[in-house]
Amino acid sequence: MSFIIGVDIGGTYIKTAILNNKGDTISKTQTETGNKKTPSDVIQRTTMSIETIIQNNNIKKKNIIGIGVGCPGQLSSVTGIVESSPNMKNWKKVPLRQTLSGNLSLPVEIFNDANAAAWGEFWLGAGRKTSTFILYTLGTGIGGGIILNRQLYTGIDECAGELGHTTVILDGPKCGCGNHGCIETLASASRLVKIVQDKIKNGVKTTLKKDYTSNTLSAKSIYLAAKKGDPFAKEMLSNTGRYLGIAAASIINTLNPEVIAYGGGLSNAGNLLFSSLRSEAKKRSLAVPFNRVKIVKASLGNDAGFLGAAGLFLDKHRNQ
Amino acid sequence: MSFIIGVDIGGTYIKTAILNNKGDTISKTQTETGNKKTPSDVIQRTTMSIETIIQNNNIKKKNIIGIGVGCPGQLSSVTGIVESSPNMKNWKKVPLRQTLSGNLSLPVEIFNDANAAAWGEFWLGAGRKTSTFILYTLGTGIGGGIILNRQLYTGIDECAGELGHTTVILDGPKCGCGNHGCIETLASASRLVKIVQDKIKNGVKTTLKKDYTSNTLSAKSIYLAAKKGDPFAKEMLSNTGRYLGIAAASIINTLNPEVIAYGGGLSNAGNLLFSSLRSEAKKRSLAVPFNRVKIVKASLGNDAGFLGAAGLFLDKHRNQ
Repeated sequence: MSFIIGVDIGGTYIKTAILNNKGDTISKTQTETGNKKTPSDVIQRTTMSIETIIQNNNIKKKNIIGIGVGCPGQLSSVTGIVESSPNMKNWKKVPLRQTLSGNLSLPVEIFNDANAAAWGEFWLGAGRKTSTFILYTLGTGIGGGIILNRQLYTGIDECAGELGHTTVILDGPKCGCGNHGCIETLASASRLVKIVQDKIKNGVKTTLKKDYTSNTLSAKSIYLAAKKGDPFAKEMLSNTGRYLGIAAASIINTLNPEVIAYGGGLSNAGNLLFSSLRSEAKKRSLAVPFNRVKIVKASLGNDAGFLGAAGLFLDKHRNQ
Repeated sequence: MSFIIGVDIGGTYIKTAILNNKGDTISKTQTETGNKKTPSDVIQRTTMSIETIIQNNNIKKKNIIGIGVGCPGQLSSVTGIVESSPNMKNWKKVPLRQTLSGNLSLPVEIFNDANAAAWGEFWLGAGRKTSTFILYTLGTGIGGGIILNRQLYTGIDECAGELGHTTVILDGPKCGCGNHGCIETLASASRLVKIVQDKIKNGVKTTLKKDYTSNTLSAKSIYLAAKKGDPFAKEMLSNTGRYLGIAAASIINTLNPEVIAYGGGLSNAGNLLFSSLRSEAKKRSLAVPFNRVKIVKASLGNDAGFLGAAGLFLDKHRNQ
């Protein structure tokens, strides 16, 4: 029996799992990423997490094919170096693959975390049995990953798939990337919360006021309120879906994909989000590619990242 | 010596050329598409054009590898059938490949015309020596083609690359596709002429008034006036470039290409168009992919279509 390890290094948790080579998860665990977030600290925690899961499952290293690691930021799967990672500390030209591989005496491959999540959904989730698949992840920002003709598409510098940075409103809100009106500034989970906060501050009537007052307002509380019928919460989700639909239409006309899936907690809003998303995308897409595409919720939740990292390791070594 | 024939079926002309298998054009010709534009009439004219160029060059059919044909509309390179072609008459499920191949007793492959032009520029023009290349053609509408990892990218239904139908202004002008604010409604050559006409009608001061009065206003007269310093003409071209830059930025962030080229007569405007295009794209793109991409004029002019159709035939048969 041979095994593969998948790791997803996130801002809050490092998630680690052991899979068999069919993609079944044998065991999974998570450890805090911690506040330091320096390369040495994060790499040490990742190493420990992997050593621990191997020991706890009594697996011999000789039976492990290798380790796939998803990591945020601009990195090269070819060199194994993380060039930069905006939400981590002092991550500049970090030899992540080489260091982890040295620590663990196992082959390691590294991938952009959003790409890994897209591959996870393509391999085992919402994109199964397709050849052309797009994943949007709706979180603090909006990330993405693109699978074309059954291959992860990464572009010439491995930075393709920045689907959060498509302009939707020319003079819209300023984005962290420097642009204005990126879809990330209009439809991410954190942006939805910000818009709702501002509207409540300005006196809108909504059952969400108690969450606002108790500082517990979240994307989840918004879609729960909407599910209970709060008209304001419903309108806010519908607007978010509409913006996502505008961006989706351009992707549909450009890439003619089979499935576009949406991950992140906000995607649990169901039709409160997806009905306006689909109708806006339909209005703005050409008929043939719109009739083809399925617009769905991602299905692997928080497991997509480590599953996809493991899957990309397998795919890379299968092709060698 | 072996030869390959490239054909570009356009709204006005059918262009036909004989190439050697290195891509050198041995001979080229064009014939009018005519006003009928029915499948039988266009196919007859295409057949005649090919027979004539073969005879005029004293080439034996046994020395011809095959014929690549670029055709507008929604078609399948796999089945050889043109599903529909909006600017032709009664083109519904036309077996173009089979009919031409039967008429000429030679292997035929058919391709979407915009994809063929993109492949032409990739093979022999502005996209040479790249692996990831985007072509926009600025004409009556805006067409496009996408080459990724040295392959023509066509999507699951062969309708990817509809780059003219990316939304740039949410509530912008109504597009022929049904959407509002597609880049095609803001920055095509015909749209530029329309905008300039409307502004002159409303009394704007410009040297273009004489072209307007004599009904000779064209994209060319606009950029010629701009080159002579007409401030209004310069502003109009700069606006066009700006809109193209907004659409380019989303493509840069999504696909991380090496080169984006612009074809069609309007691309001859040079920096009057390209300086605002580049600066707008820079403002709205992430740094790594923007620093990589070259934004240039396409280099093959009207030859891109038949060259690319021939090249795609070669590529398809090379891979078989």
